[in-house]
Amino acid sequence: QSHVQIYGVVDAGVLAEYGTPAGNTTGIGSGLASGSRLGFKGSEDLGSGLSAVFVLEGGYHVDTGAMGQGGLIFGRQAFVGLRGTFGTVTVGRQYSPYYQAIRDVADPFEDGMAGQATNLMAGNYRMDNSVVYATPRVAGWSAEVAYGAGEETDKLAVNDARKRQFSGMLSYTQGPLLVMLAHHHREDALLPDHVRHTALAARYTLGDVMGHVAVADNRGLAAERSRDVLLGVTWKNGPHRVLLSAIARNDRSAAQRDARQLGAGYLYGLSPRTDLYAAYGHIDNDNGAAFTVGNATDSGNGNAAVNLGLRHIF
Amino acid sequence: QSHVQIYGVVDAGVLAEYGTPAGNTTGIGSGLASGSRLGFKGSEDLGSGLSAVFVLEGGYHVDTGAMGQGGLIFGRQAFVGLRGTFGTVTVGRQYSPYYQAIRDVADPFEDGMAGQATNLMAGNYRMDNSVVYATPRVAGWSAEVAYGAGEETDKLAVNDARKRQFSGMLSYTQGPLLVMLAHHHREDALLPDHVRHTALAARYTLGDVMGHVAVADNRGLAAERSRDVLLGVTWKNGPHRVLLSAIARNDRSAAQRDARQLGAGYLYGLSPRTDLYAAYGHIDNDNGAAFTVGNATDSGNGNAAVNLGLRHIF
Amino acid sequence: QSHVQIYGVVDAGVLAEYGTPAGNTTGIGSGLASGSRLGFKGSEDLGSGLSAVFVLEGGYHVDTGAMGQGGLIFGRQAFVGLRGTFGTVTVGRQYSPYYQAIRDVADPFEDGMAGQATNLMAGNYRMDNSVVYATPRVAGWSAEVAYGAGEETDKLAVNDARKRQFSGMLSYTQGPLLVMLAHHHREDALLPDHVRHTALAARYTLGDVMGHVAVADNRGLAAERSRDVLLGVTWKNGPHRVLLSAIARNDRSAAQRDARQLGAGYLYGLSPRTDLYAAYGHIDNDNGAAFTVGNATDSGNGNAAVNLGLRHIF
Repeated sequence: QSHVQIYGVVDAGVLAEYGTPAGNTTGIGSGLASGSRLGFKGSEDLGSGLSAVFVLEGGYHVDTGAMGQGGLIFGRQAFVGLRGTFGTVTVGRQYSPYYQAIRDVADPFEDGMAGQATNLMAGNYRMDNSVVYATPRVAGWSAEVAYGAGEETDKLAVNDARKRQFSGMLSYTQGPLLVMLAHHHREDALLPDHVRHTALAARYTLGDVMGHVAVADNRGLAAERSRDVLLGVTWKNGPHRVLLSAIARNDRSAAQRDARQLGAGYLYGLSPRTDLYAAYGHIDNDNGAAFTVGNATDSGNGNAAVNLGLRHIF
Repeated sequence: QSHVQIYGVVDAGVLAEYGTPAGNTTGIGSGLASGSRLGFKGSEDLGSGLSAVFVLEGGYHVDTGAMGQGGLIFGRQAFVGLRGTFGTVTVGRQYSPYYQAIRDVADPFEDGMAGQATNLMAGNYRMDNSVVYATPRVAGWSAEVAYGAGEETDKLAVNDARKRQFSGMLSYTQGPLLVMLAHHHREDALLPDHVRHTALAARYTLGDVMGHVAVADNRGLAAERSRDVLLGVTWKNGPHRVLLSAIARNDRSAAQRDARQLGAGYLYGLSPRTDLYAAYGHIDNDNGAAFTVGNATDSGNGNAAVNLGLRHIF
Repeated sequence: QSHVQIYGVVDAGVLAEYGTPAGNTTGIGSGLASGSRLGFKGSEDLGSGLSAVFVLEGGYHVDTGAMGQGGLIFGRQAFVGLRGTFGTVTVGRQYSPYYQAIRDVADPFEDGMAGQATNLMAGNYRMDNSVVYATPRVAGWSAEVAYGAGEETDKLAVNDARKRQFSGMLSYTQGPLLVMLAHHHREDALLPDHVRHTALAARYTLGDVMGHVAVADNRGLAAERSRDVLLGVTWKNGPHRVLLSAIARNDRSAAQRDARQLGAGYLYGLSPRTDLYAAYGHIDNDNGAAFTVGNATDSGNGNAAVNLGLRHIF
């Protein structure tokens, strides 16, 4: 008991979606603001500044009781490693360093609710079979690199499909400023090709207001290429929190599948651990682009959505 | 750790069944008296009489290690909500108000062991995507209403099968008496029709003895209609507990598929948290009725069964 | 919270395999030294020397977040029972008494890492639907017997495939010596035949060194018969631990599919709960024998493997 800490999120609410294949729909959703989760974590002091650390965190759907992440018991995060003066080395299923630039720096919505950045922008969320090294922070600088082995140890060669990934970020913070540069490289499962994302994100705090700005360059298969620009604002005052963001995706391939998203959110803190929230997100798709307004749990079905919910952190 | 409480039940025993398609069988079963479960729950005081509450509770089979409820991690209960002077509002996968009338009032077996009422009577156990409002108790009166959204937010319209449900109960208690009136309405998944159940259940405590009585009216599809009458007794004395119940199901359709069940159970409390139990249930089926004697976890295969087991609550 | 204790293992590392169908492979593996697991256990003092006990323990893959044991929530162990002066009786999914002789006495690797005994020898790990009785230890003697019911209570007779198992062990310990005799009997699922294993294992501690010796006789279907002989050494000194074992399998059937395994391992204890480990295992297969070098979680794909990892116990 003393070696493990239990934590989690229970988040549920009403989800209204507009412009879905089934028209406009309304229902109950789980994890709109933050994915509902249950986690177990711990650390052990090994002396000489060294610690062992682990996290086991699984997602679930509070509306149906089902496991998240397609049926993985610890599908959100699972890793073990060592932390010391040299930094931290961890092994398991882990968030990519790239994702930190999107969730923690660029997106006022922290990758949740209808206005979340990943409706348009690549998230590169998690890497199976990964080794992550994070440096300590020195004079405001820190970095993190990750390598994801492509399941080479599978019994059958045909399952060797999820190929290697590399991800890294470089971060600098000074006073109110945080800047992060991130890159993610994923080998394609079938083609001798790969997908690359590069993002530069910054946020700046001025009193109650935090400004966010990000640019991402995406290079896909077969010369697909696009660029995203995000501008956002977080305003906090007492229990009130307002989130605004605008994202433009510029498709630089011949198809010109551009898109623009506007997102607005409001959270009322009943306590530091419990929020009521409301959010709206809307996407304009050009030339057959098919981006959808999702939330922290679901990728969404329509081009606009309203979220009303309750998030409790334990 | 301080924000979450772990609790559960481990229940296992010997299950003998009679009159099954495979003849008479004997084996090891899980959760005969109470479904084996592991749960996480918590509440947070938000001030002004308001609290946030959550429950995450999953079933499992102690005999095989498998997940319960067909593979749901929190398939028994999963909800989050707010409790205040106005009552409690919760969202998630929750027991129907109707089920409370059966389990908590009508059935001496509390919906477990071979004599359980739901062998014959409808349980209407759980509602996915549900919002439940429970009033506070005022002068002995309380009520609960639930609405279950029909998964309208599914990506594919063809999955929009589990239609809406409504469920409610009204309860009155005074001294030794508890009376509950409950109704459950479920839209059919395919037909423009619905299933309705109405139950009136009461229990009365006199010294060591509690008497139970219940009547349920069931209206199914295509003019199916039936009525159930239950009489039961619970006798408690020190570590001993004896349960008896008799149920008659009167099929009011042309097929006349009536059935009668007799159930008897005995629990010996090794402690308030640990019981040894024995139970017997027997059903007489008329005109091809196919009711089976189950238990808290399994719906059963035969028309009679014996349970011998150990239930530990933690 | 006070009634349940949470415990577990997070184990991850690099797994290199040689001579697999896909050639030589390298990747990240979970649970090489000990299967990664999360468990919940507890006991309740019932007075008069009697206690209720339970264990719920599930495996998982830290490299992918997936559930272990093919998708069982408590696939490692799940049982409830009573412990008293008479011994312990438990019901559920449990390790066979036979497996204790292999893991706890015979194998210096304790059934983990590339050198583990079960690469060649039968493990008879777990028994579903089982009742286990363990005697108390008297004058150095103890015994354990297990009966596994063959899922007779399944709804369909065709699923009644996993037939009954019987398993038992007799153990004697005096000072530095521990001897265990074990037998396991499994009815075949289809044929009116059964598989039987008998093992005699001993270990002897002399200062920093523990010597291991075991002989197993295996009788399979259709007159298959083989014999295994194991010799092993465990050397412990401060944080260092060296494991060595050699196993010869003598196939006494006409096919003469003999095999020999050599295993070597080293663990460095960063603390009593956290180890760095390295291991190597190699198998020589004769006449088409197809034994593979596995680890605590995977049965392996090649005839040799290297493990490098970190195991943290909480």
